Amino acid sequence: MAAPTLMAHANGGAIEEPKLSRNFKSDNVTPACAPIMAAINAANLGSVPSYGGDDLTRQLQTKASDVFGREVAIFPVTTGTAANALALSQITPPYGAVYCHQAAHIATDECGAPELFTGGAKIIGFPSPDGKITPGQLASAIAFAEDMGVHHVKPGAVSLSQATEWGTVYELTEVSALAAVARQQGLPMHMDGARFANALVHLGCTAAAATWQSGIDVLSLGATKNGALCAEAVVFFDPARARDFERRRKRAGHLWSKLRFVSAQLLAYFEDGLWLANARHANAMAARLAEGLRSVRGAFLLQSVDANEVFVALPETTVAALENQGFEFYRWPLSAVPAGVAIRLVTSYATPQAQVQEFVTAAQRCN
Amino acid sequence: MAAPTLMAHANGGAIEEPKLSRNFKSDNVTPACAPIMAAINAANLGSVPSYGGDDLTRQLQTKASDVFGREVAIFPVTTGTAANALALSQITPPYGAVYCHQAAHIATDECGAPELFTGGAKIIGFPSPDGKITPGQLASAIAFAEDMGVHHVKPGAVSLSQATEWGTVYELTEVSALAAVARQQGLPMHMDGARFANALVHLGCTAAAATWQSGIDVLSLGATKNGALCAEAVVFFDPARARDFERRRKRAGHLWSKLRFVSAQLLAYFEDGLWLANARHANAMAARLAEGLRSVRGAFLLQSVDANEVFVALPETTVAALENQGFEFYRWPLSAVPAGVAIRLVTSYATPQAQVQEFVTAAQRCN
Amino acid sequence: MAAPTLMAHANGGAIEEPKLSRNFKSDNVTPACAPIMAAINAANLGSVPSYGGDDLTRQLQTKASDVFGREVAIFPVTTGTAANALALSQITPPYGAVYCHQAAHIATDECGAPELFTGGAKIIGFPSPDGKITPGQLASAIAFAEDMGVHHVKPGAVSLSQATEWGTVYELTEVSALAAVARQQGLPMHMDGARFANALVHLGCTAAAATWQSGIDVLSLGATKNGALCAEAVVFFDPARARDFERRRKRAGHLWSKLRFVSAQLLAYFEDGLWLANARHANAMAARLAEGLRSVRGAFLLQSVDANEVFVALPETTVAALENQGFEFYRWPLSAVPAGVAIRLVTSYATPQAQVQEFVTAAQRCN
Amino acid sequence: MAAPTLMAHANGGAIEEPKLSRNFKSDNVTPACAPIMAAINAANLGSVPSYGGDDLTRQLQTKASDVFGREVAIFPVTTGTAANALALSQITPPYGAVYCHQAAHIATDECGAPELFTGGAKIIGFPSPDGKITPGQLASAIAFAEDMGVHHVKPGAVSLSQATEWGTVYELTEVSALAAVARQQGLPMHMDGARFANALVHLGCTAAAATWQSGIDVLSLGATKNGALCAEAVVFFDPARARDFERRRKRAGHLWSKLRFVSAQLLAYFEDGLWLANARHANAMAARLAEGLRSVRGAFLLQSVDANEVFVALPETTVAALENQGFEFYRWPLSAVPAGVAIRLVTSYATPQAQVQEFVTAAQRCN
Repeated sequence: MAAPTLMAHANGGAIEEPKLSRNFKSDNVTPACAPIMAAINAANLGSVPSYGGDDLTRQLQTKASDVFGREVAIFPVTTGTAANALALSQITPPYGAVYCHQAAHIATDECGAPELFTGGAKIIGFPSPDGKITPGQLASAIAFAEDMGVHHVKPGAVSLSQATEWGTVYELTEVSALAAVARQQGLPMHMDGARFANALVHLGCTAAAATWQSGIDVLSLGATKNGALCAEAVVFFDPARARDFERRRKRAGHLWSKLRFVSAQLLAYFEDGLWLANARHANAMAARLAEGLRSVRGAFLLQSVDANEVFVALPETTVAALENQGFEFYRWPLSAVPAGVAIRLVTSYATPQAQVQEFVTAAQRCN
Repeated sequence: MAAPTLMAHANGGAIEEPKLSRNFKSDNVTPACAPIMAAINAANLGSVPSYGGDDLTRQLQTKASDVFGREVAIFPVTTGTAANALALSQITPPYGAVYCHQAAHIATDECGAPELFTGGAKIIGFPSPDGKITPGQLASAIAFAEDMGVHHVKPGAVSLSQATEWGTVYELTEVSALAAVARQQGLPMHMDGARFANALVHLGCTAAAATWQSGIDVLSLGATKNGALCAEAVVFFDPARARDFERRRKRAGHLWSKLRFVSAQLLAYFEDGLWLANARHANAMAARLAEGLRSVRGAFLLQSVDANEVFVALPETTVAALENQGFEFYRWPLSAVPAGVAIRLVTSYATPQAQVQEFVTAAQRCN
Repeated sequence: MAAPTLMAHANGGAIEEPKLSRNFKSDNVTPACAPIMAAINAANLGSVPSYGGDDLTRQLQTKASDVFGREVAIFPVTTGTAANALALSQITPPYGAVYCHQAAHIATDECGAPELFTGGAKIIGFPSPDGKITPGQLASAIAFAEDMGVHHVKPGAVSLSQATEWGTVYELTEVSALAAVARQQGLPMHMDGARFANALVHLGCTAAAATWQSGIDVLSLGATKNGALCAEAVVFFDPARARDFERRRKRAGHLWSKLRFVSAQLLAYFEDGLWLANARHANAMAARLAEGLRSVRGAFLLQSVDANEVFVALPETTVAALENQGFEFYRWPLSAVPAGVAIRLVTSYATPQAQVQEFVTAAQRCN
Repeated sequence: MAAPTLMAHANGGAIEEPKLSRNFKSDNVTPACAPIMAAINAANLGSVPSYGGDDLTRQLQTKASDVFGREVAIFPVTTGTAANALALSQITPPYGAVYCHQAAHIATDECGAPELFTGGAKIIGFPSPDGKITPGQLASAIAFAEDMGVHHVKPGAVSLSQATEWGTVYELTEVSALAAVARQQGLPMHMDGARFANALVHLGCTAAAATWQSGIDVLSLGATKNGALCAEAVVFFDPARARDFERRRKRAGHLWSKLRFVSAQLLAYFEDGLWLANARHANAMAARLAEGLRSVRGAFLLQSVDANEVFVALPETTVAALENQGFEFYRWPLSAVPAGVAIRLVTSYATPQAQVQEFVTAAQRCN
């Protein structure tokens, strides 16, 4: 079990290891991990300049530039919705279109935040079975828009979820191919990286390769699902693109007076590869879950398990039995399930291996 | 010195007493106080339902209802700008006017957040020397709007800052008189309570008397300046008015997945009167500062010191000398200062009495 | 040929009959018809109260109430996009969803106007081959939204295009069935009636039956495509729903100072059944076109021709030959055409029968 | 009397001369003048490309470039509110400030349209007795904003009303001085020219000198108050600044399908100096009114009568008597009137000299 190792990072001492739970609902039901909690506590001293004028926020700029292999502009915020919607508002005009997958968080899970922050841009989602969009879909949507001219929203930006909402991960070549279409039209590329670390450890490449070297202009970097208390960030790979972004963050109510407490989390997140260690554990738990479920009669993996989510179809009786035993997960509204009921299982940095084993065993027995 | 007393609340143990500083710039340069930090640490255990489905958030509803003496709907957020702009968006139509003081935070310090969240409402500020607006100003603005009809924005809401931006506090009768004008026109009353606790201890009344019993419909309750790490809340005194507010918070990116960490802060804030103790100390330090400055030659108190802010005019040489000695504060852009330079000094829950004494002594010497 | 009959309405005298053209691109390439032009000229006298305080605008309220068989609130504007976006802004919250067909004008042809005026609502389009949405699609989208809770936009309104973008017309029972689903959820029903008169003459029912008696709450009534110079209107069947709508119109820049000139057009439009006569002619020309095309080899009608639009697939060579002869129409981007090229042909109140005959003959010859 | 001369332009024949009225409420209570009505009628022929693809709209680009002495991009719309709000939305970011006079139309008479179209920019009005703002006010507001940094809206644009809301006209040197301050900060200059022609004939300079040669970047050009039926325009003096403006107009519902009818009005407006002749007459009538009122006992001219508006204080008894005789005008809410009641009298292209004489005589008698 990996979690104890992670706990060894802790210097706060007071943080106990998460209790064994039966919760696979989301990676956002987790506590903050020990090193991050320690960093928050350590930041809580003295009179410190507010609104990001502090040392930790300054250090974060340097640290993030190291992590991404070039000078970046990084803006801490505290929700993924804020990161996404603010990032898009910076790169899309109010009369623009943002192209993404139909199931993208920006399209279905943010209650219209991108529309609010962009001033009314249209989020146009493409369907696909694996959560990834294709260069063909993108090119065709752009061609349609050009044909429609002034009557239609103007192609504004492209947004990829990495990892996707279906737990899959775009290969670097897939990202590059989409970026090539976008570049031809002058469209900036956004990456919703709520689970970026999970994607990164799957790809096994550098953060640079996964982003700007593949054509990404701005990244919503998530940490909350992967061990932070409340830390996300908008990262611009060309700082010139971030002009006035400060004001967008402020007028959205997302500039903290005590910003050091978010910056501290992100510093700890990057420190000693904590973000990768956490994600590696989460991914490993998902892989083990998937592996275990293969031996369950009637189980059918619905997606490739690239990151920390498992979409699986199970017989209705199995699902009900697992629910009765207190396992928590979402029944997932999928239109095309070969048989049984589709459920989503999410693992996290804090999922003990024993919890996975317990679930698999229960599924086998229920069957 | 009161700070040690406050520290006695701490159960986390690890938090040290703030170092003596020379910083009077704002009450937002402070750390989180010990009981609040302890509450955050205590909340960091186990798999917990996200997005406010947790126990702490539930307890907060009850606790806040106790504190305000009636059933309220309370929504934790993490910046005062978010609290204000979201509250106003709930009560003002996009073609509406919000009446407030010219120097109100919503008018000058939020980079257009109220405009963004309301969808374009107009913030109309009235001038006055002490930061308070009057029933006459309000009535006259409403009359003008009615005269203009459809061409002008529609009277939408009234917003009072309590304490005001000038460190003064509306008497309850002043609030009631404004609410009477508003009620006649069907306008809801908002209170920007970024420093509500400071106002409350000055008034010496109940939280109920200071708000809904005086005609307030919705309160932006600040805690960050008064000892929290990141905790503000929107409080509706009639829960029916909060219909769909959840969605407004979500689409502004202000619904935390790990909301328990904000709720925990607010619970600790209310517990054992921590909020009042903190504010009482801050106010006492401001009073002592004002008292000390009276003996400084050429000093001229510009406003009544009702809460934790001191606006004082000092000779330019004195101000420069204090700055040279490392004291930090803002030179304040006031149009009508009798002589010298206007500066603002802010005290907080964490201001040691010695820091005040040091400043007064220095001011006397510089003179 | 009906056009001469229509011309007989003219009392201005100066207006000549439209020249025979080869233009089938849209019904918006037409001039204003004679009676409407005469009404504009007649309105051009004297000092008249501005902003709708005039007699013609007052008369329009009465006239429209007569036409729709109940007291309505009618607001003249001058583009269909304005009518739609303003209507939706009145009935949908900014965090709401508007359900419509994927090809609805509000979804694809208004460059984000509904998003702008509603403050960011999401337009959710359903696919279907004939331009109509179904109660099942609506119910399922609402169920999805409810399942998603605060994370998704809230069901806000339903919008039907009548006639549809594919030239088909909802039967009254189809409208009622959709309204029944909407009513169960408290969702208001909007009708985009850019070609409402065309639908009405197809249905052969009263304007009341086609709208509020079938569950419609607000109608965008088009006249520009059907003989007006610039006249559309938003019609609320319950005037109480129109509260503050005046301000929405004003702040969108759509309240004319010389509003009498739009009201005059709408009065003339309703007078002596001009709107129905115009639409009847347009529909008849489309029917005749469809009939004629049946005899063209390789022609394939793609939609039922219920109103004044014909969607037909023709061999590429035929299409090219027609274009070369100066016939104007749009090649239509349809995903599933059995063979050849899909084109759209639109007829209008001003399409002479000879123009239709000429086209059919040419198509037969090209073949 | 000048009106008959204007009528000589008419070629439509059917338009009668405006009846003598007693209406001085506004220049928007007027009919359309004969040449413009004739142009509308003349444009009403044949199948014409929609949405501005027509010849008249093309000719207008050339004509406007001639009129302004350089290549401009001109966009016809149909209300002044639309022209202003769209123009500002093109040059101000949503987190920006627009500096103008407190009484500017954009600040008080447009129900929040600039806020809607800019996505929430803040309209900041400066006070002054004559309706003009000063370079000092502008510089000081910009300095305040810079001092406030990210917390305040960013200086975005400057908007001058020419003629002003008080019937005065900025001298060219006054415009240039303001533009110099703006240019230093990179702020674009907007001119609200709802009564631009009136200002122009007062200044006696070229349209070029009054606008871009004095530092104006974009002009809202009004024609409706000066003889059009419904014609305003947004004029960009650097066409590169107009990038994507087409989409802003479309998504605001201000792109007409039958745009030729607006373009035709503007072409006629410029033709043979009609706009100047109309404005010259209106101004002359205002001057005569002012001259006549000097001889009225107790009358006090409140502003310089530079254009076509007269602000005058008269004894309450005189005002009441004039009202009783059927003269129409607004009592104006001025805070500082030396004595009596302030009223506003507006003349127009259609005000007969006899109407002015009648008013003056009546005022003398009432006295």
